[in-house]
Amino acid sequence: MQDNLKERLCGAVDEGFDRQVAFLSALTAYPSTRGNEQSAQAFMADELDARGYELDCWQIDIAEIQHLPGFSPVLDQYEKAINVVGSHRSKTDQGRSLILNGHIDVVPAGPLDMWDSPPFEPRVENGWLYGRGGGDMKAGLASNLFALDALAACGLAPGGDIFFQSVVEEECTGNGALACLARGYKADAALIPEPFSEHLVTAQLGVIWFQVHLKGLPTHVAYAGQGANAIEAAFPIIRALHDMEQRWNAAENRPPEYGHMDHALNLNIGKIEGGDWTSSVPAWSVFDVRMAIFPGQSIDAAKTEIERVILDTARENAFLRNSLPEIVYHGFHAEGYALSRDSSVHAAEAIAALDSAHQTATGHALVREAITATTDARFFGLYADTPALVYGPRAEAIHGFNERVDLESMRRITKATAMFIGDWCGTEEL
Amino acid sequence: MQDNLKERLCGAVDEGFDRQVAFLSALTAYPSTRGNEQSAQAFMADELDARGYELDCWQIDIAEIQHLPGFSPVLDQYEKAINVVGSHRSKTDQGRSLILNGHIDVVPAGPLDMWDSPPFEPRVENGWLYGRGGGDMKAGLASNLFALDALAACGLAPGGDIFFQSVVEEECTGNGALACLARGYKADAALIPEPFSEHLVTAQLGVIWFQVHLKGLPTHVAYAGQGANAIEAAFPIIRALHDMEQRWNAAENRPPEYGHMDHALNLNIGKIEGGDWTSSVPAWSVFDVRMAIFPGQSIDAAKTEIERVILDTARENAFLRNSLPEIVYHGFHAEGYALSRDSSVHAAEAIAALDSAHQTATGHALVREAITATTDARFFGLYADTPALVYGPRAEAIHGFNERVDLESMRRITKATAMFIGDWCGTEEL
Repeated sequence: MQDNLKERLCGAVDEGFDRQVAFLSALTAYPSTRGNEQSAQAFMADELDARGYELDCWQIDIAEIQHLPGFSPVLDQYEKAINVVGSHRSKTDQGRSLILNGHIDVVPAGPLDMWDSPPFEPRVENGWLYGRGGGDMKAGLASNLFALDALAACGLAPGGDIFFQSVVEEECTGNGALACLARGYKADAALIPEPFSEHLVTAQLGVIWFQVHLKGLPTHVAYAGQGANAIEAAFPIIRALHDMEQRWNAAENRPPEYGHMDHALNLNIGKIEGGDWTSSVPAWSVFDVRMAIFPGQSIDAAKTEIERVILDTARENAFLRNSLPEIVYHGFHAEGYALSRDSSVHAAEAIAALDSAHQTATGHALVREAITATTDARFFGLYADTPALVYGPRAEAIHGFNERVDLESMRRITKATAMFIGDWCGTEEL
Repeated sequence: MQDNLKERLCGAVDEGFDRQVAFLSALTAYPSTRGNEQSAQAFMADELDARGYELDCWQIDIAEIQHLPGFSPVLDQYEKAINVVGSHRSKTDQGRSLILNGHIDVVPAGPLDMWDSPPFEPRVENGWLYGRGGGDMKAGLASNLFALDALAACGLAPGGDIFFQSVVEEECTGNGALACLARGYKADAALIPEPFSEHLVTAQLGVIWFQVHLKGLPTHVAYAGQGANAIEAAFPIIRALHDMEQRWNAAENRPPEYGHMDHALNLNIGKIEGGDWTSSVPAWSVFDVRMAIFPGQSIDAAKTEIERVILDTARENAFLRNSLPEIVYHGFHAEGYALSRDSSVHAAEAIAALDSAHQTATGHALVREAITATTDARFFGLYADTPALVYGPRAEAIHGFNERVDLESMRRITKATAMFIGDWCGTEEL
């Protein structure tokens, strides 16, 4: 790409940046937690439509994806799970195609009194935009969209097909991205601007979610000795799961990408609920666990060990021995994925193009990083032979209180993305 | 009392027993859990009214009781907390007066699939009536009412005033019984047919309820090491509370009534809730604790130690040290009570009268028992100088699944109660 075009694209990003921040702020104001993404998706669809993209909005149909590799089990129906894709069809089709992917779903805000300002009333302060989902990952959606806008502002369109995806379900299953694959959206590369501090993600972990349902023997607490407390029965099981977590993290079990990390795999007790009455020995409890696995680690083997650990521990409990825990898989069934293991020409070229764009936008070499989370990249990389580049702005406190995203970082990512598109896809006249 | 009258009263109980079981069944069908007692109370009021008792139904007003000894703090308002008292005013007033007390509130049923039949569709099988609240303590309410009916069937009324109380809130605060005291209901003795297997309760424990609110430092679980899990932070605190429980139960701390019991004081983790999202380190958790204390043990001292244990343990947690748990008292603030320590003439006479009635009804001597629960007896005994006799039928699985009450036991209790009333109050012509 000519230096002149790089400059023009960066200038166009600067030119449009106030609008981009306003867009991000508007998008972050939608409380698009799981099941509540529709209004945010309608906003995205309107924005794409206004720009002339070919629009495809559809409700995810489990029947169309449940047989596919990468599918994660869900407890609820998908009545309100709407994906939005805006397509640009290149007239010349001389360049490579690209998926620009981002997720619209955000995690719950948690107790509102622990936020300095309301999570869905975004505010800008000292160069940061605060709000739930601002970083994870609405800034990425904004970056994708305004990078394309920058090309348009230069009188150009990508010289290959672009599929702009705003998907649901990234935070719990990935079934939104999977549904895009199932619907036929394929390209030569994918870019996902998840908020990893302008680093290129070279490897990501797999994630398994499961619930453990425990029963107890309820009695009046006056006779607690004759009962079996379903809440406290969880504690040794949780301890045993943490022991398993330590084993999985042992040096000899780490693949090269994670060799330097003592504790890449985190087991999280994310939710718990149990009991109905303070003076009754609780009859039930349920806790929700997230456990990570390494790229290459088998989900089935991991599940087998998880189940063994839970049931073996339960058998040490006089009551649970005869009333074993129920293990319910209700979300992520995600394999790990390592872009670094993709030896294809497309992968090498895409990384090189991004590296170059990043250097121009930031003045720094592109840092490679193996992350301890999962992203939707796995669907493109593992199940569609598409190198998936995860590369997005710096954010802080994602999933926490006072989540915030660095707006100058979003500006740099947007510039790098615009240049990457221009390079990867080539350009044609609007 | 003449043998002839005893026989007639027992015969009248037998005569009315089918109606009594039908009444108990109808009453048990009302799902009168906390906040949902109104329809059951309306039923009780109708039954009392139809029998000619002077009716007093009123909503508990916290302002009228919160300054009184024995008051327990509540989190909710009392918009729907209705007490029902039916009074019989003796024409001759030659005998002693009596409060017949029972509570209408029942504890939650818990998961319905763990019941053999629906908890609020009572059924009779092999001499047991099954249903939530059938034993604890609607059979007692039935026994009180049908004992009075037996007198009436003999053409008699009690020769002293009778205050038939159907109260709310026994299962969480006792504020229903307290409100009866505050409204002026006083008598020479009280009888509460709680389901303790036809034994006379000579001592009961105090009970304190508290909630522990914990905060955490939420992060994306990918960075769990930087977060602080509010759910798992509960575990060491619960362990420390159990250590405290062991100390309080130590032989040297037991009063004479409980000297033979290794573990009279039970600490129960009855409820827990925490976290919003499986892949977020949870920012909050709350657990509910019931702890018992011995008669004579100070509530304030107990609370001081509970708070010390919780806060000391929290200070060992790097995050909680700077974000200490909040301890909320939201129910029982109940002192222990020992009828056995009541050296009044009324107490001795009431126990003797009950002993005699019990022997006649059952053929056995009255067994005395110190129980590991609390009852509303404390209000009469501690705050109104009224000996309170807790004496009711045999029930099983109270607060558990498939709660049931022994109908023949209810029959015996009803007979004993009828004879006790005849003896204690004397009789007059209807």
